[in-house]
Amino acid sequence: MTPTSEITSSTAVPVPDSVQAVPAAAETVLREMFDVHRATTAQISPVVATLVDQLAAFTLNGGKRVRPTFAWSGYRCAGGRTDEAIARQALTVCTALELIQACALIHDDIIDRSDTRRGRPTVHRALEAQHVDRTWSGDAGHYGVSTAILLGDLALSWADDVVASRDLPAEIRDRVQPIWAAMRTEVLAGQLLDVIGEASGDESVDAAFRVMRYKTAGYTVARPLQLGSALAGADETLSEALGAVGDGLGIAFQLRDDLLGVFGDPAQTGKPSGDDLVAGKRTALLALGLQAADADDPAAAAELRSMIGRPLTDDELDRARAILRDAGAERAVEDHIDRLVAESFEALDAAAVDPSARTELVTVATAIAGRQR
Amino acid sequence: MTPTSEITSSTAVPVPDSVQAVPAAAETVLREMFDVHRATTAQISPVVATLVDQLAAFTLNGGKRVRPTFAWSGYRCAGGRTDEAIARQALTVCTALELIQACALIHDDIIDRSDTRRGRPTVHRALEAQHVDRTWSGDAGHYGVSTAILLGDLALSWADDVVASRDLPAEIRDRVQPIWAAMRTEVLAGQLLDVIGEASGDESVDAAFRVMRYKTAGYTVARPLQLGSALAGADETLSEALGAVGDGLGIAFQLRDDLLGVFGDPAQTGKPSGDDLVAGKRTALLALGLQAADADDPAAAAELRSMIGRPLTDDELDRARAILRDAGAERAVEDHIDRLVAESFEALDAAAVDPSARTELVTVATAIAGRQR
Repeated sequence: MTPTSEITSSTAVPVPDSVQAVPAAAETVLREMFDVHRATTAQISPVVATLVDQLAAFTLNGGKRVRPTFAWSGYRCAGGRTDEAIARQALTVCTALELIQACALIHDDIIDRSDTRRGRPTVHRALEAQHVDRTWSGDAGHYGVSTAILLGDLALSWADDVVASRDLPAEIRDRVQPIWAAMRTEVLAGQLLDVIGEASGDESVDAAFRVMRYKTAGYTVARPLQLGSALAGADETLSEALGAVGDGLGIAFQLRDDLLGVFGDPAQTGKPSGDDLVAGKRTALLALGLQAADADDPAAAAELRSMIGRPLTDDELDRARAILRDAGAERAVEDHIDRLVAESFEALDAAAVDPSARTELVTVATAIAGRQR
Repeated sequence: MTPTSEITSSTAVPVPDSVQAVPAAAETVLREMFDVHRATTAQISPVVATLVDQLAAFTLNGGKRVRPTFAWSGYRCAGGRTDEAIARQALTVCTALELIQACALIHDDIIDRSDTRRGRPTVHRALEAQHVDRTWSGDAGHYGVSTAILLGDLALSWADDVVASRDLPAEIRDRVQPIWAAMRTEVLAGQLLDVIGEASGDESVDAAFRVMRYKTAGYTVARPLQLGSALAGADETLSEALGAVGDGLGIAFQLRDDLLGVFGDPAQTGKPSGDDLVAGKRTALLALGLQAADADDPAAAAELRSMIGRPLTDDELDRARAILRDAGAERAVEDHIDRLVAESFEALDAAAVDPSARTELVTVATAIAGRQR
């Protein structure tokens, strides 16, 4: 059998001295993890190691490391120590979130039939192209999807290996485990809800908020904050407060994204104008707009419905925006964002959080919200 | 956030009094696990809980529980205790193998584009049919694949949650973790090798054996035996011996399956005659046949190659069998099986294994090999 390999916290990784330093530190940790996996899988077969290299390149290509950053912020909020050995173990666990995210993105890109991500071909498309280049036999598209499913599974398994590793003190594993378990179930449930909602044409505001909460807010902000705080031994009260802060901020970020997906300037967002409408994305903005228009202006509601999920001319796009604006949906979402952010920062103020860590979290949250504007 | 839930070892589960009792006990454990997951996901959304019910039904529908059985056998070989609390914890870990297997089967059925399994529609096909029944919008086939990918991911995550659960003593988790990690990497690497081998038309005997070793032997027999023995605190010597026994037996089982896939009687195998040839499966039998025919009878080798991966008439099938027989491949595989089984049982005799557990393992191994005849 292949010798087992384990990920150990390396002494080469610098402990982040601020949340801004987390992305670079996390990337160093990821590189070390993939070095180990490359070596282990090369013993099974060099062709598998080559695919692992592609998984590594995908995981390391860009990405803002939002989840490790929030997790580290949660660690610091709960007074997590920065002496080297302990902080490195915490950083390793925070970084494992990027392996979950690699799986989520790879599988999501298959589900969304996306061709590109971060300016490069998605994993299943890149693997499909290799099949074509090598003039292999069979259906290249199906080969790409098949191998990408398996690479996503590997990333998910390796994330779990990090958190379960016996190189981490059992005390840390015990604190992390229930949050880690809940987070994975929630994000997968959120993805299922998203797929089901799109297929069933669920237009309800509730459904849109539920997907946001589980697929985005919990997974991206609330659970990472709680994970980090657990690493520092946070009590239940602080954990719950950080969960509430994270849910509020996470939903606010997503609502901001939803506004940009319809009203955003392509020059600033980097995405085509009205992208979400064309893609037929069931956002809260759209749900609110349809709900209000159904009550006040059924003809406009019908018109808006006819413009979901198909290519739109500039005039049609302008019309869709006007309907959402007239229905009060744009304003309602803006107000909701303001309220969520205010409540989140109030909740943060009320919690027993280290003051410098609080400032850092506000800075990070504002930077992430700002980047999306 | 959704309350976290954890799987605990139930007092309602009977401890198996023999390896034959493992399947029933494992099913009771699985039912309890799914009850918890159903309750947790119902709090997220009833539609997700409904999909979890389908995952549960798939996992509980048949299946011989081979992996938990070998794991339990490994536990007993290493002298694992049968007093209730400890044995139940061991059984819970052994049973988690069935959740890994649920993911492997669901994702494999997508990869193999299989329509049925155990006489029922595969998960992605069943979900596709629901989409059609409900006259939902979008591509029903793609919906089936998308939701099946995510249900497989859930099963994989839940398997890992069992093994990482803080309800298990840290001592047990520490022993299990490196084997669990290696096993998941190996089976996924084996699946990747299988997909790559088929696409690249790799005909080598080496490639066929490598896929068998990682995708089947290690995952089905060797690692489960080692996992179980680790639960009982086996030392490195015993673990290595059980790994060798499991590799040998696992490869022997697969070779027997390969023979049946070409020479088997449909009335006994329950599969169409010559199934593996028609499916284009790159078995060791085929690799050995092509290798020998290339050397001795190139015309026959070319003829055999022309019959891989397409529908065959009865005459063509008879001709393919004759070529494999004349090339000595059938005999070579039979001899190899006999040698592997003999060596495995010798290795088992040489190991410090509890005598009654040894007898049970031989019985189980023989039953599984026999069932496939």
